[in-house]
Amino acid sequence: MPKNVLFDRNEVLNNVTDLFWRKGYNGTSMQDLVDVTGLNRSSIYNTFGDKFQLFEMALRHYQSTQNDWLRKAFSEAKSPKEAIVSLFHGISDDIKAGNQKGCMLTSCTSELSAEQPIIKDFLIENKDRVVASFAALIEGAQQLGEISDQKDPRTLALYLFSSLQGLRVTSMLEPDLEGVAEEVLSIL
Amino acid sequence: MPKNVLFDRNEVLNNVTDLFWRKGYNGTSMQDLVDVTGLNRSSIYNTFGDKFQLFEMALRHYQSTQNDWLRKAFSEAKSPKEAIVSLFHGISDDIKAGNQKGCMLTSCTSELSAEQPIIKDFLIENKDRVVASFAALIEGAQQLGEISDQKDPRTLALYLFSSLQGLRVTSMLEPDLEGVAEEVLSIL
Repeated sequence: MPKNVLFDRNEVLNNVTDLFWRKGYNGTSMQDLVDVTGLNRSSIYNTFGDKFQLFEMALRHYQSTQNDWLRKAFSEAKSPKEAIVSLFHGISDDIKAGNQKGCMLTSCTSELSAEQPIIKDFLIENKDRVVASFAALIEGAQQLGEISDQKDPRTLALYLFSSLQGLRVTSMLEPDLEGVAEEVLSIL
Repeated sequence: MPKNVLFDRNEVLNNVTDLFWRKGYNGTSMQDLVDVTGLNRSSIYNTFGDKFQLFEMALRHYQSTQNDWLRKAFSEAKSPKEAIVSLFHGISDDIKAGNQKGCMLTSCTSELSAEQPIIKDFLIENKDRVVASFAALIEGAQQLGEISDQKDPRTLALYLFSSLQGLRVTSMLEPDLEGVAEEVLSIL
């Protein structure tokens, strides 16, 4: 008779995501996954598939929590420019409060985009989506006169995306990036 | 009688550095190192030590080629501000010419700084050195009136460092960052 497998799928996914975020795909072993989930190897394979499938699931899970957080931050802002400003302030506050974990998507770009075309495609799509969100906010801010309409929204949006990557990587080595976030925002 | 080991140490180090840069520390196996060097395992262990020691050597080798390149770029520039501008233009030109490899030090920050204190210390030292070089250039440019002296040199230097990290990670997903580099420089 098969053993019953009872566990909270969402809790497992949270733990697995944290693990891959901290150690990367290649730095995480099946034993690490067994330890963090409390499940045995066959339960992991039967429920989630192999390590690569589990990593893809974790990456999408991370992306969806990031998206939820962005949507919330944007919906609470008083104006489009305020949405961008508060996003960058939120990140630098978080770094100053001690978060040195960086961003799982940024770390994954460094680790896997050259070697894993499927992951690279996913990351390009993610980048395009974030850049499109920033561009929409910038266009909105330009219509309200909050940001100069001399600037190209797409270029400015890509600049914000790139600056975000930089802040997240640099935060792993430097705990105070408030001044840097202010400089990033100063061109708006 | 021991077999003679004849090889070009510098060529081996270049190949090993390229491999670790592309695949990361955890993504590189001893077999990959055997394949790329043409040496057998015992020759690698006897000459360079274990995989971690070889990685540290590759990281220092990469850092030294980056330092040489920076020193050359800075010495050829007509002024301190010009040195910063040409550095960012050089990087965005290189990206546009098809270099999607990112930066080994940036990728290493994402992969290992949370898990390997020795590597994190090395990366913090490297960051401090690059930031100090940028700060010296900014102070020089301020004395010449090329950059406003209202700006704090250290904050601006850290902004340039962070922007560089962002450009190098983003280049792995996006081949045209000329406009982004211009936006980064626009605050100088």
